[in-house]
Amino acid sequence: MKNIIYDCDPGHDDAMALFEALAHPEEINILGISTVGGNQKLENVTKNAQHILSAAHSKIELASGQSQPLVKEFYPATNAHGDSGMDGHDFPAEDANYPISSLNAVTFLHKKIQSADDLVTIVATGPLTNIALLLKTFPEVKDSIDKIIIMGGGLDHGNITKGAEFNIWTDPEAAKIVFTSGIPMVMAGLDVTERAYFTEDELQELDKKGPISAIAYDLLSYYYKSGKQFGFKNSPVHDLCAMAYLIDPTLFTGHIYSVDVVTDDSEARGMTIADKRKLPENKNSTLVLLEVDRERYRDLFFQAIEKLDQEN
Amino acid sequence: MKNIIYDCDPGHDDAMALFEALAHPEEINILGISTVGGNQKLENVTKNAQHILSAAHSKIELASGQSQPLVKEFYPATNAHGDSGMDGHDFPAEDANYPISSLNAVTFLHKKIQSADDLVTIVATGPLTNIALLLKTFPEVKDSIDKIIIMGGGLDHGNITKGAEFNIWTDPEAAKIVFTSGIPMVMAGLDVTERAYFTEDELQELDKKGPISAIAYDLLSYYYKSGKQFGFKNSPVHDLCAMAYLIDPTLFTGHIYSVDVVTDDSEARGMTIADKRKLPENKNSTLVLLEVDRERYRDLFFQAIEKLDQEN
Amino acid sequence: MKNIIYDCDPGHDDAMALFEALAHPEEINILGISTVGGNQKLENVTKNAQHILSAAHSKIELASGQSQPLVKEFYPATNAHGDSGMDGHDFPAEDANYPISSLNAVTFLHKKIQSADDLVTIVATGPLTNIALLLKTFPEVKDSIDKIIIMGGGLDHGNITKGAEFNIWTDPEAAKIVFTSGIPMVMAGLDVTERAYFTEDELQELDKKGPISAIAYDLLSYYYKSGKQFGFKNSPVHDLCAMAYLIDPTLFTGHIYSVDVVTDDSEARGMTIADKRKLPENKNSTLVLLEVDRERYRDLFFQAIEKLDQEN
Amino acid sequence: MKNIIYDCDPGHDDAMALFEALAHPEEINILGISTVGGNQKLENVTKNAQHILSAAHSKIELASGQSQPLVKEFYPATNAHGDSGMDGHDFPAEDANYPISSLNAVTFLHKKIQSADDLVTIVATGPLTNIALLLKTFPEVKDSIDKIIIMGGGLDHGNITKGAEFNIWTDPEAAKIVFTSGIPMVMAGLDVTERAYFTEDELQELDKKGPISAIAYDLLSYYYKSGKQFGFKNSPVHDLCAMAYLIDPTLFTGHIYSVDVVTDDSEARGMTIADKRKLPENKNSTLVLLEVDRERYRDLFFQAIEKLDQEN
Repeated sequence: MKNIIYDCDPGHDDAMALFEALAHPEEINILGISTVGGNQKLENVTKNAQHILSAAHSKIELASGQSQPLVKEFYPATNAHGDSGMDGHDFPAEDANYPISSLNAVTFLHKKIQSADDLVTIVATGPLTNIALLLKTFPEVKDSIDKIIIMGGGLDHGNITKGAEFNIWTDPEAAKIVFTSGIPMVMAGLDVTERAYFTEDELQELDKKGPISAIAYDLLSYYYKSGKQFGFKNSPVHDLCAMAYLIDPTLFTGHIYSVDVVTDDSEARGMTIADKRKLPENKNSTLVLLEVDRERYRDLFFQAIEKLDQEN
Repeated sequence: MKNIIYDCDPGHDDAMALFEALAHPEEINILGISTVGGNQKLENVTKNAQHILSAAHSKIELASGQSQPLVKEFYPATNAHGDSGMDGHDFPAEDANYPISSLNAVTFLHKKIQSADDLVTIVATGPLTNIALLLKTFPEVKDSIDKIIIMGGGLDHGNITKGAEFNIWTDPEAAKIVFTSGIPMVMAGLDVTERAYFTEDELQELDKKGPISAIAYDLLSYYYKSGKQFGFKNSPVHDLCAMAYLIDPTLFTGHIYSVDVVTDDSEARGMTIADKRKLPENKNSTLVLLEVDRERYRDLFFQAIEKLDQEN
Repeated sequence: MKNIIYDCDPGHDDAMALFEALAHPEEINILGISTVGGNQKLENVTKNAQHILSAAHSKIELASGQSQPLVKEFYPATNAHGDSGMDGHDFPAEDANYPISSLNAVTFLHKKIQSADDLVTIVATGPLTNIALLLKTFPEVKDSIDKIIIMGGGLDHGNITKGAEFNIWTDPEAAKIVFTSGIPMVMAGLDVTERAYFTEDELQELDKKGPISAIAYDLLSYYYKSGKQFGFKNSPVHDLCAMAYLIDPTLFTGHIYSVDVVTDDSEARGMTIADKRKLPENKNSTLVLLEVDRERYRDLFFQAIEKLDQEN
Repeated sequence: MKNIIYDCDPGHDDAMALFEALAHPEEINILGISTVGGNQKLENVTKNAQHILSAAHSKIELASGQSQPLVKEFYPATNAHGDSGMDGHDFPAEDANYPISSLNAVTFLHKKIQSADDLVTIVATGPLTNIALLLKTFPEVKDSIDKIIIMGGGLDHGNITKGAEFNIWTDPEAAKIVFTSGIPMVMAGLDVTERAYFTEDELQELDKKGPISAIAYDLLSYYYKSGKQFGFKNSPVHDLCAMAYLIDPTLFTGHIYSVDVVTDDSEARGMTIADKRKLPENKNSTLVLLEVDRERYRDLFFQAIEKLDQEN
């Protein structure tokens, strides 16, 4: 039983990661969920999280977090996720009544981690603003964190710019704080997430099977269309990788590197750079995921949706 | 009666600012004092704060804060302030028993501000790491802050580099957060602080007058010697300007600008740049102090020391 | 009798500087004129130079230079100088037949300097792309250059950005090459050029007096209107300062500093920073002009225009 | 018969590339050789070029070029190549009498290219300072250049820093000029050069076979020892790849990308970044070499040395 907190900016692929987590209550104890401005502005992604949690009849506490990157300006990813940040499905209006904690996300996460009975794993699939502030403002939490699993970055290439992936590029200063915190990291970056797609044929299997698969189908269908503009035949479901790694690390292989983040306003802003030189070891170590067993990754997700369909 | 918190990195000149504050209990209600790594590493500047507070028989609560800048590496100003960060006077060993809050500075400041009965003024004379985290992690405090008065920056020139002043250069990312927070700022930068010196003759007046003047004399004598290496005939007592402005703003004149901070690793890292163009107004406004009535500034300080001598 | 080359991007104020130079043939021997992309794209500013030289019946050789900054992208100053780069006066079409050297500007300048009988002064009032390439490709010319007088930069503030002046910002890499070349520099930056204006009443004196004053009146009238958008009551005739300094240095006062240029893509790109610290001297020295005797500056120009009116 | 110019900073591996070129006079017409500060300061690498050319009894013209990077400071690679820049073999003192052109390298290259009877290929295995100045000062040469083959950069990782390769890092501004010039490029970066090694056993075959193999053996033996400090079992002979590609492109495979260079003083300074996104094509195209047939690469070199042994 792993204690986790999930920090996200739903977002189509965050929603899939959340569904997958909710389908594994025997293995994953979600202490709380927090939102951060990223795929869309904070109020939108928080509303989207409410929709998903309502749809799955969840009782997990939700807190709203940072609306802006730590230091510089904010540019949401409207072109990928639409105006709502999670276009493609009409949720009932009352789903937005899902309760939101009176604590801001950083304080909320601090409290949840400090009161946990065991080490906590952080899964983060948005910009790392909340997590950076948590680690800086409450450095004592470091002793209570097992590891941080993120979707973000990419050693080989970027998406929002040629070298940088969107989540890291949105708040590179926060990412640098997290990557250099000394906490063990798992990085599901574009290297692996772009291999972690479902085919459009596979997607059809979700159609009209049940209440959750209907949502998943609608959202992924929108997301697949949106992905065509970036040249993807099958849109990678990026954020799901971070959650899938948590549930079954054997789906993935990777390599441990010391990873740094470029914060300057250069051609490279937001890049994650691994030190691959054969030099004396750096102390900050990140497991960079590089390969995924796509079939088993797909099955894990489809079984999760099927389970939720039955429960909801 | 102004409620204030004082965030500092003593530091010879921070010590003078603290003495001046302690001498005005009818006008200044110090809710708490916090320390930050800057002139020296955190443990040193916290110990130095304990020494000063012990010497003045103060009861004000003290909290220890951030040891490192927000995003990048830390380089203390050892060449100006010596190995202890406040070389020049032998304090009794038991002075270091002054109690330190169990809360870290950011949480401490949050609590002090939220429980204050009126708006709070922040006086900050070190790197702005604590204050940036306070504003980011607990954005609700913005409504309770009257203004932030800092020693830092400089429009005309720098000291640690040709363009950048030490406090801002040490943590430019934190400074950018504070300058762009929307809270009214007063900036006592090198423009005014280098005019805010005492002559060496004036300094002699402190010699052996009483317990506090003895400390002030020793510390300023060391600081004056140290200042010679930077070409100063009379060392500017930088940090004292921020506290003097709080007590008597009529000592100073200045100009309101929109001020930004350079965060990139360029020749300009840590510079404060005012937008002096005659363009439509920016919303972030900083009163940049430019001139000081040095005689009255000196008298305010010498009277404060004399008062503390009598009380201690 | 001073040998000079004039590198420019006309531009209303470059045109005034050129008129002033042409009116002093006994003191200034113009070995050649070269153009550089800046206020407008290269083909426009070269055409503008042809117009001015034709109007003054000059015989000075003209060469066309670099169309793009050394390393990064080019953004001409269309909003200040209009589509032609020198809007406001209709020149006869045949004026654009003024001959252009078959040599590119860098080779042209090299040849002119190497064949000069004495040291040469470079006056440059556009981006420093041509001059940087001249100094780098033909380093032997350094021994033949007396000094470089530029319009560019500003220690106190910028115009195109809050910190950077247009000419330097357009090609900071070139500027850094020139400022660190070891050649004595005179910098007429915004510090002095914004004090070097004519009032609108004074401008009226040019109206319909003769063929050159008619051009000057038309161009400056356009330029004054354009300047209103930047908040100027009386538009500074920036580039004229560099030429006026050449003719009569006593019009100006200034201070010698080591000046560096910020090349990174930060908030400070293109800033000129003087090292004002009292540290051991840097070897690269630039006379930064700070004050101008505006009445004498005006008279020098009006007398030049009157002289050209009589000659043309 | 390919016309080439070879711009280099010998350097152990530059020397091997030069030997390989000299052994193919039927296929490669070397119009001239130029040197640039890089592996060591200019005077050293020029002397090293003289030694190699003397040893091979060459008659090819040699010109000395830029001693410093275009814009920023110079840090030679002393730790890899020793104090001379090519430590390991004692050359006869008279070898340094090899004639050096009175023209500087940029002018020399311009003249050689303009007077060639056909298109010219540039092979460049040092910092790109000379080539950048050539392209900027004499843009007309672009029409006479077939392609530019460089050793430099790396998409996957760096050597001098975690992200940047030494040649590009030494002068990123020059590299950016060359990569964005529009001329077809072939980039033999660390991706391929680190696969282009000889084993230490293979190296033994060179020992005492003849005058050139003696030099090659001494130089590569030094270089192999020096490479151990960077964790290499078998030191990659980086620069040789560029020349080997010229002689036999079928030794290599690669991919065409638009490649940009990071010039800012960030963690990424000097990185080469390919745009691998599936977006509408960029116009600047670089063939990035990724794989080498190491056995054939080795044979090509050993046959060249054997041929030179027989001729000298």
